[in-house]
Amino acid sequence: MTPTITAFERSPDGGRGLARDMQVRWALEEVGQPYDVRLVSFTAMKQPGHLALNPFGSIPTYEEGDLALFESGAIVLHIAVRHAGLLPDDANARARAVAWMFAAYSTVEPPILERATAVILEHDAPWRDERLPLVDDRIRKRLAELSRHLGSDCDWLDGAFSAGDLVMVGVLRRLQRSGLLNEFPNVAAYVARGEARPAFKRAFEAQLAVAMAASNS
Amino acid sequence: MTPTITAFERSPDGGRGLARDMQVRWALEEVGQPYDVRLVSFTAMKQPGHLALNPFGSIPTYEEGDLALFESGAIVLHIAVRHAGLLPDDANARARAVAWMFAAYSTVEPPILERATAVILEHDAPWRDERLPLVDDRIRKRLAELSRHLGSDCDWLDGAFSAGDLVMVGVLRRLQRSGLLNEFPNVAAYVARGEARPAFKRAFEAQLAVAMAASNS
Repeated sequence: MTPTITAFERSPDGGRGLARDMQVRWALEEVGQPYDVRLVSFTAMKQPGHLALNPFGSIPTYEEGDLALFESGAIVLHIAVRHAGLLPDDANARARAVAWMFAAYSTVEPPILERATAVILEHDAPWRDERLPLVDDRIRKRLAELSRHLGSDCDWLDGAFSAGDLVMVGVLRRLQRSGLLNEFPNVAAYVARGEARPAFKRAFEAQLAVAMAASNS
Repeated sequence: MTPTITAFERSPDGGRGLARDMQVRWALEEVGQPYDVRLVSFTAMKQPGHLALNPFGSIPTYEEGDLALFESGAIVLHIAVRHAGLLPDDANARARAVAWMFAAYSTVEPPILERATAVILEHDAPWRDERLPLVDDRIRKRLAELSRHLGSDCDWLDGAFSAGDLVMVGVLRRLQRSGLLNEFPNVAAYVARGEARPAFKRAFEAQLAVAMAASNS
């Protein structure tokens, strides 16, 4: 059965692959599962039809037969559990890969989201320039911990590429324009390794095509 | 095999159940799994021994035979998958319960963590009083969405109590002193329902006992 995901009709990132359907597309490409996409406007997202799929009124959602899911992390994990290719076979290694998924969302991403808030929502606030370096230092702390963990030998967080890497790379890509990744060359190389995967590239092109069509309409 | 978790030797919350071992204790109590606790000092948390368990140098960790895990969400999910009582039997309902776990960490908690940062780390910043209402509004948006989802009929987020509720209640409890929960009576009632569970109470008492012992030493 072909699942259907939702994505922004007009993504605020203009196709840079930062909207959260990107990780779901990437996961589906990694496991070779075709999918349909339903584009949703910002207005439709707040209507009862979409809220029944995602109580927080956002994308992505995932529909497959009787199943309706929200939260990109949960959708990626669902795909990873149902298909081969995104989780190791060994039970302990699987649990650790899932730990890295939670680490991405719960430990690494919060200061990165705080930065997005500072730059976008509080762009004109009088404290912006003085406060941003404090937020950046909180991000650096996490990047330093990731850098230490990766060391000089690790291509991925824990053995082979997994859903944990997919989600972590997705979170770290939000720092593209900040310059912070370049302060930690092995973390930047890790992100680049993720972006070099053929499945990533196919997912990226697919979401970019939507953004291009929207900007031409 | 009895698992061993780690917790703060001296928890910064003084035993209010806001340290992240609380959710792990609660999950273990819900499924009736005894556990051992190893207390860790702030110094020891940053040493190689603990960093091998948690690359971000924090608690909780979870050790069970050959398995070592970090991230409270991943540990709760591991417990929920291995034992009956925290996930529904139906596969689709299980996936939705996991979606609520990710929603707690990825969608609801970020502005709540931002508030903690604003109140604690930026307590003396000149922008504190002017900025806090902006952060509170971002939290209110999430609470309103949760409130709408719960409506007047739902005891829990999706049918019976699950690991999704356990994690969500844990996240929302961080708002205790903010007064924000009281603006959404059905969300406050939801949190109170979680806190009224016998397993929650046992977990709370266990972490409180550690804090009391630390304050008397």
